[in-house]
Amino acid sequence: MENRSGFESYVVVHNIAKRHNVGTLARSATAFGVSEVILVGRRDFNAFGSHGSTSHLRFRHFHSLSDARLFLKERDCDICGVEITDNAVAVNQHPFKKSTAFLLGNEGTGLSAKECEICDFFVYIPQYGCGTASLNVTVAASIVLHHFGVWAGFAERSRDGNKFIVAERPVNQVRRNYCAEMSDAIIEERKLKRENASNGFFDESGKGDSPSNLLDGLFSE
Amino acid sequence: MENRSGFESYVVVHNIAKRHNVGTLARSATAFGVSEVILVGRRDFNAFGSHGSTSHLRFRHFHSLSDARLFLKERDCDICGVEITDNAVAVNQHPFKKSTAFLLGNEGTGLSAKECEICDFFVYIPQYGCGTASLNVTVAASIVLHHFGVWAGFAERSRDGNKFIVAERPVNQVRRNYCAEMSDAIIEERKLKRENASNGFFDESGKGDSPSNLLDGLFSE
Repeated sequence: MENRSGFESYVVVHNIAKRHNVGTLARSATAFGVSEVILVGRRDFNAFGSHGSTSHLRFRHFHSLSDARLFLKERDCDICGVEITDNAVAVNQHPFKKSTAFLLGNEGTGLSAKECEICDFFVYIPQYGCGTASLNVTVAASIVLHHFGVWAGFAERSRDGNKFIVAERPVNQVRRNYCAEMSDAIIEERKLKRENASNGFFDESGKGDSPSNLLDGLFSE
Repeated sequence: MENRSGFESYVVVHNIAKRHNVGTLARSATAFGVSEVILVGRRDFNAFGSHGSTSHLRFRHFHSLSDARLFLKERDCDICGVEITDNAVAVNQHPFKKSTAFLLGNEGTGLSAKECEICDFFVYIPQYGCGTASLNVTVAASIVLHHFGVWAGFAERSRDGNKFIVAERPVNQVRRNYCAEMSDAIIEERKLKRENASNGFFDESGKGDSPSNLLDGLFSE
């Protein structure tokens, strides 16, 4: 990560409901220099929309919000909820102090009380028009991550013509490295998946044939 | 539009390839106080992702980029291309002077030479990571529109708890008003659609059963 400042950003996704959102979110996360995407709770998702960027991203999984919080606090991260709360600050005011993990609300209901509890502060994105109560979750995340990068002074990626240069795909060594700790959990998840296959628990999108499990993809090569 | 500044923003979409992008784009457009979405060339799209915001947005259609340019210049608008060009300015530097129409690149190839010709200046969104050459078009548009709103000092929409308040659906009077000029074009387009139905011209997404034509929707009530 080309980062002048020493600060890092993280994205925390808790039980995201629309799995295709994670793909586009991954594309923005890598564009804006996010260090890791942290999945809490469910972690099957659809890489559609990621344009291959998931292979350049580090993913980490925790079963509970408090585990995720512990990990982030060990890294000296603030946890910033992206939500319209009474004390939320407009994100363009850059209320950041150090490395920050952004916790995103579920697309439907925003952050729950439990999710708000692990947050140190909140940002929101000002809206001006009358036609929508909220933004798409990936759009909101992208705006927030963009502002953090500007604030932190991340170094800009080199360009080639009108595109930013995409790195070679990470070598397997690297991929194994950040996934190794999860291998037990993968086995557990696959077992759970088989058990749940009949009741469609992993299939709430209604598209059973979509390539939904990135973790399978990470280990299939 | 609650707008202290007197400045206005527009979005110009030319032959957008992935029709479902327009739905999410519409949601962001209304969130960020865009005055009109201007469709150039093809104008059938899929309102999926708009969460109903399309009914709060003004749409206008032109057959050519030069017609769109004429209209915008009559409104004393700058035309700003969202593209990584040699002379593009980072959008967070707010290189705006007055009302601005943002021309978005097609998702695949960015702005064409012809599209660049009608632009007065260009902005780009800095990227920091190595995993993607560009952003999703709706994400890019949203970041740019957000910055314009901040620069222009648009008044923030009132909130109710953790949601911005959505207005009543516009009355038919208003909707007829901004669509009236297009009625001839609608008839023309429907004819064209019938003619093209056999070769799938309006159906490149492979989903023939999706609700694709918003203009039909606008006139169906």
